[in-house]
Amino acid sequence: MEDKIIAENELGDWRRSHYSFQISNSVINQVVTVIGWISSRRDHGNVLFVQLRDRFGDTQILVKKKELSETIFESLKSLKEHSSIAIRGRVVEQKNSSNEFEIMPEEVKILSVSNKSAPFLTQAISSIGIDTRLDLRAIDLRRNHLQNVFKIRNTILNSIRGYLSDNYFVEVNTPKMIATATEGGAALFPIFYYDREAFLAQSPQLYKEQLTMAFENVFEIAPIFRAEPSRTNRHLSEAMSIDVEKAYVDYNDMMDYLDNLIRFVIQSINEKNQMELKSLGIDLPDMSRPFSRITYSQLIENLQNSHKYIRWGDDISPKLLKDVFGDEFYFITDWPASTKPFYVKSKKMDLLTDSNTGDDSHVLSESFDLMYGSLELSSGSTRINNKVNLMDNMKKKGLSHKAFDYHLRVFDYGVPPHAGFGLGLERLLMAILKLDNIRDATFYPRDIDRLTP
Amino acid sequence: MEDKIIAENELGDWRRSHYSFQISNSVINQVVTVIGWISSRRDHGNVLFVQLRDRFGDTQILVKKKELSETIFESLKSLKEHSSIAIRGRVVEQKNSSNEFEIMPEEVKILSVSNKSAPFLTQAISSIGIDTRLDLRAIDLRRNHLQNVFKIRNTILNSIRGYLSDNYFVEVNTPKMIATATEGGAALFPIFYYDREAFLAQSPQLYKEQLTMAFENVFEIAPIFRAEPSRTNRHLSEAMSIDVEKAYVDYNDMMDYLDNLIRFVIQSINEKNQMELKSLGIDLPDMSRPFSRITYSQLIENLQNSHKYIRWGDDISPKLLKDVFGDEFYFITDWPASTKPFYVKSKKMDLLTDSNTGDDSHVLSESFDLMYGSLELSSGSTRINNKVNLMDNMKKKGLSHKAFDYHLRVFDYGVPPHAGFGLGLERLLMAILKLDNIRDATFYPRDIDRLTP
Repeated sequence: MEDKIIAENELGDWRRSHYSFQISNSVINQVVTVIGWISSRRDHGNVLFVQLRDRFGDTQILVKKKELSETIFESLKSLKEHSSIAIRGRVVEQKNSSNEFEIMPEEVKILSVSNKSAPFLTQAISSIGIDTRLDLRAIDLRRNHLQNVFKIRNTILNSIRGYLSDNYFVEVNTPKMIATATEGGAALFPIFYYDREAFLAQSPQLYKEQLTMAFENVFEIAPIFRAEPSRTNRHLSEAMSIDVEKAYVDYNDMMDYLDNLIRFVIQSINEKNQMELKSLGIDLPDMSRPFSRITYSQLIENLQNSHKYIRWGDDISPKLLKDVFGDEFYFITDWPASTKPFYVKSKKMDLLTDSNTGDDSHVLSESFDLMYGSLELSSGSTRINNKVNLMDNMKKKGLSHKAFDYHLRVFDYGVPPHAGFGLGLERLLMAILKLDNIRDATFYPRDIDRLTP
Repeated sequence: MEDKIIAENELGDWRRSHYSFQISNSVINQVVTVIGWISSRRDHGNVLFVQLRDRFGDTQILVKKKELSETIFESLKSLKEHSSIAIRGRVVEQKNSSNEFEIMPEEVKILSVSNKSAPFLTQAISSIGIDTRLDLRAIDLRRNHLQNVFKIRNTILNSIRGYLSDNYFVEVNTPKMIATATEGGAALFPIFYYDREAFLAQSPQLYKEQLTMAFENVFEIAPIFRAEPSRTNRHLSEAMSIDVEKAYVDYNDMMDYLDNLIRFVIQSINEKNQMELKSLGIDLPDMSRPFSRITYSQLIENLQNSHKYIRWGDDISPKLLKDVFGDEFYFITDWPASTKPFYVKSKKMDLLTDSNTGDDSHVLSESFDLMYGSLELSSGSTRINNKVNLMDNMKKKGLSHKAFDYHLRVFDYGVPPHAGFGLGLERLLMAILKLDNIRDATFYPRDIDRLTP
């Protein structure tokens, strides 16, 4: 019976009359058309129970041999999970079914036949290696676990757009094919651009800064590309970045925005995704207070006081952070200017202890990182808006003025003071849902080993 | 005086208290802080009128010499347009000012100084070559004309997302770095992907089709990349594509969706952008009836009857279309299968006149193009969901099964019947606002000649 060839039907003029969530008291005893794929089946010989899944959930189909033609009954009986079918049938009450109703088919169309058994169950959480799942990602994404993750991803995107629009930000799009490295030298993917070399943008940084001239408050939600040769559970070669930039504010304002934005996102998930959270077994982070803020220098001092080996000016490894911070959101602020890109504004020297020495190795920057445990979610700063200062800083970082001429020329026309941040969508999703692997926070991950599907 | 060096101030703790639109009766005689850039000035010797522009419009500042320190007055007098300033001052009524109020400054901060005069006025519509404008795009985008265009672009994006969400579509993101040409052989940008060759996606086609398995109704709004060596006013190398795909429907359903989507977009612009439309001098297209639909074969017959030289199977040039259609939206449907990509479903042969000859050169496809005048805005079709048919079609088009293995393997698990379309955002904006050049429908255009800014 397993090898029986089942003919597929054309969709023809059959269309769904009701989604699963619309099968309710109001349609009892009516004939409806439901369409979807088979998420599970129970075979009791002359009776089959089929769970038919659509975008919103399952509808139970009760298939009795004596009430359908033998061909159709036998076809349904031998259909594998994942096959798509359409059912015209009558809605009846069924106290034992999960949504209290079931459908007694009168006509059936088999729309698409699954010829193989998927190597994982839709009910499974992660019983199998991620590479096997990713090789069949389209089917993997049918799993309840990922369905919940991506429903919440959708809430995050919508709530971020809503929050930013309500705060007078306008959505922009900046080019992904660019002439020069935005941040100088970091890992870039080269492109053949007609007869020239170009690169994939690793961030919309310079463009979003320029756009504050014309639109003041801008945001972009778009892919960024980083040729990081690392094999970790928290890096992607292609990721979605939420980039926000605002004129006439500084990094402290942007920290407030980011804090409120995350708060709004969590609140939206709390309102819209109780079912998904329950199914994932996730408690949302406590959002009763603003995120704590610690300066880089204070953190280094604390680490040194607990006998960790670290010098002022060093990056702080995830391992060290893990020893200090639990699973919570917090800001590390005022990083050494030397650790930040050329466009980041330095703090005024007279605020520093060694301002009189002329030594600028201890210059701080108006910058912050938003962390969750040891995971960096976002970086932000006040940006340099004065051309002379910007050119000085580029020189310090060894960047060619000529290569950035297209950017520098804008500064002749009065770029407003501005500040902003970039926030990684997949990492935010990882943090909120406590996902182990960033690959499950995106549809089709890209990394050093994976370019397909 | 023009060469006087004007010192810039730090923003410090100054923040805007009111946007221009918030300067109203409710704040008369109050001291407010307004911040923005100088969009125009009139100098009457001891009195200056400064238009201070923020994201929402202009506020008039009345600067009297005798009421400010001489240094500040002289600085303001010599400041060029585009410079950014902050004003603390009192709101007074002024019947002659455009928004009925003006501000008498008590304190002034000069935040950013424009050292050059821009080669175009913010009031100008297009007095200057587009290349000069694009070289200074950030300043160009301050022009009223483009501000209006991009406000409407924002309405289009928001209304499309709103419409699709209301119709149970979920937003997805698909990889832009891919292993093989989606549509086979068309102009692609190659990338160095670590040690391999890869390409920039010219469309999310295969991915969005796969995603109908897990999410049924999906859309993506994201950049697409086409290495078209053409120099025209309607092609970009990087454009925003609105991609929509839906399970369990065919191309006729998707035409209805697209028709309604455009209708909803136009209605949203009509509700939200009257001021911008007026300023642009644009009448929105008449949307009282659904768009007309003509089959490819009928159109060819009509053209032949009007003595145009064209054969069945030929593409239809913009020039020929221009002779038949005015500035209106319409669909051309049922294109020859030979003109469409491998994933497009053919119409059932028994519907064709020459179904019995076995000759498939006249096979039609379940496809449509949405046109506006001679401009193609969108292409859509029913897709092939059966693996054997898809492989046959790939063979016919000379594509390697092996190169698409990562895609074909999904079809072993029952891909649902589905249909969809891609819609070009910039072209839609061009059509609605009757823009001459597609470059003005995007922030930073990319073409064969332009990679910066």
